[in-house]
Amino acid sequence: MRTTKTILLKSRPEGKPQITNFEFTTSDVPELKEGEVLLATKYVSVDPYLRGRMSDAPSYIPSFEVNKPMASGIVAEVLESKHNELGKGDYVSGLLQWKETQVARGVELIKVNADKAPLSAYLGVLGMTGLTAYLGLTEIGKPKKGETLLVSGAAGAVGSVVGQIGKILGLRVVGIAGSDEKVNMLISEFGFDEAINYKTNNDMTGAIAKACPNGVDVYFDNVGGEISEAALFNINKFSRTINCGAISVYNNTELPKSVSVQPFLIKKSALMQGFIVSDFADKHAGGVKQLAEWYSEGKIKSEETIEEGFENIPQAFLGLFEGNNKGKMVVKV
Amino acid sequence: MRTTKTILLKSRPEGKPQITNFEFTTSDVPELKEGEVLLATKYVSVDPYLRGRMSDAPSYIPSFEVNKPMASGIVAEVLESKHNELGKGDYVSGLLQWKETQVARGVELIKVNADKAPLSAYLGVLGMTGLTAYLGLTEIGKPKKGETLLVSGAAGAVGSVVGQIGKILGLRVVGIAGSDEKVNMLISEFGFDEAINYKTNNDMTGAIAKACPNGVDVYFDNVGGEISEAALFNINKFSRTINCGAISVYNNTELPKSVSVQPFLIKKSALMQGFIVSDFADKHAGGVKQLAEWYSEGKIKSEETIEEGFENIPQAFLGLFEGNNKGKMVVKV
Repeated sequence: MRTTKTILLKSRPEGKPQITNFEFTTSDVPELKEGEVLLATKYVSVDPYLRGRMSDAPSYIPSFEVNKPMASGIVAEVLESKHNELGKGDYVSGLLQWKETQVARGVELIKVNADKAPLSAYLGVLGMTGLTAYLGLTEIGKPKKGETLLVSGAAGAVGSVVGQIGKILGLRVVGIAGSDEKVNMLISEFGFDEAINYKTNNDMTGAIAKACPNGVDVYFDNVGGEISEAALFNINKFSRTINCGAISVYNNTELPKSVSVQPFLIKKSALMQGFIVSDFADKHAGGVKQLAEWYSEGKIKSEETIEEGFENIPQAFLGLFEGNNKGKMVVKV
Repeated sequence: MRTTKTILLKSRPEGKPQITNFEFTTSDVPELKEGEVLLATKYVSVDPYLRGRMSDAPSYIPSFEVNKPMASGIVAEVLESKHNELGKGDYVSGLLQWKETQVARGVELIKVNADKAPLSAYLGVLGMTGLTAYLGLTEIGKPKKGETLLVSGAAGAVGSVVGQIGKILGLRVVGIAGSDEKVNMLISEFGFDEAINYKTNNDMTGAIAKACPNGVDVYFDNVGGEISEAALFNINKFSRTINCGAISVYNNTELPKSVSVQPFLIKKSALMQGFIVSDFADKHAGGVKQLAEWYSEGKIKSEETIEEGFENIPQAFLGLFEGNNKGKMVVKV
């Protein structure tokens, strides 16, 4: 039987994930059954939310099992097909395992068009990342032209798209990121009105107040923790906070504590709402259509950090927690 | 010139308000001008939110000024009138000063009907308290029949109405209160399905889990602090938390810290939203109508704690922070 390189979850991380939590091995590639395709992995998405799946704490998606393959969003090429609508040479995306070669059911894959956009974009701005940005901002944030949008983790995959959509919708957009290089990129590449480097700023509450002279109407929160506390002091009456991620506390081994949000929400009649992109599954098709239109018009750029090589998937993932990525982190296999 | 007994804010409280923050004095009662009425105070509402107005921290309503009269919801009798629609002997409600006798503009008052309900009810279940319960629960909580509603501060003015409306709407209703007497009252008087005494319970997270076997869909939060942390561990996917009050932290002199809510909101795609009743001003008339209908049908009871005597208004207010009240606290003058 044919075999393929495979990456397993070796052990559950305590706190920050380590390279030792992963194991490289080989696994069998079974024969194709009716409705299945044989796939060659082309691009692998690594995402902060995978940290949650590596724990066994109850969450919105099942935990990975120890000694079983890791999985994430992958774009792959069809090598052989026993599925009617997919043929050799087609490209597909789906939630697939960290294997160089694998068998998958055709119905669980989406065919992607390599002519409309680079393949890696289907893991980012035209995939779950773009939908997360678009649906979180519009469905929960309900922004109105002229309002101020604050984005934390703004140089990240979701954040950079959120900011660009904010500009398309006529908002004042302020980003928070962790280096001067990222801050410059937000303004010059992605059209943010202002950006703040939280690593060199001792008074984030004051810095946000200065960058948002009319206060914050919509806060797209990718980080949680201290930055979100500083945002809280700047929210406007009737503001909406979109809780998309809390990467600053994902590696905490104890329950993180923060300034109590309740008194702020009461004083400001303000809303906070968490979500995952699948909550809005009925809006995905329309969202991809809108995003693709903006993409083809050049209104959204997709910053990517592309690492190379199947062996480097775990390191690319670990790098997310060091802030090594600008925009969507993908690994080209 | 005629004078009247008056209660002033003498000094701003540090932490818990004290009797020394108030001063009893007399003030002049001016002559009536066109459009004004002379009023005799009958019932005075004392409410936790007044604590906020005694500080000078920015909030949703202006601070009281030091050496100026306190004010709150009051039902009064018209003694003399220079306003077309109000005559001697009519009863009115409005935001009025802590004076035995005062002059007010007729347009700022609502005429109330002493035959339909006891006068004190217009400060509670048929006033802002009832509207706060009804509009917070329905507009933010959006409860669906069969869901589980958890109410903190359940024996308080707002909480007891929230629970009763929850039962009318077909919810499983669980209350949290601070004595066995209150717990019994919630179940036997107000029809709550279960109630928890937080003062005798060391594991509130577990107690809520036990009382809410299907989890919490709607949490009407009047208290904030540790009880709200325990609630957080029990919220369901797509749950809605209504942030109505945070009395447990209002007297804190430092910013209170709590378990970070963001990871919970993200995991559960959950919503938290603060409000004050004036946010839904366009829904007040309809709300009072609905509440009055339920009241006349005997579906909502209004538990009141009535203190007697103008001189006891400050003590009645201070008693709120000791949990001395069951239901709406009013002072009969």
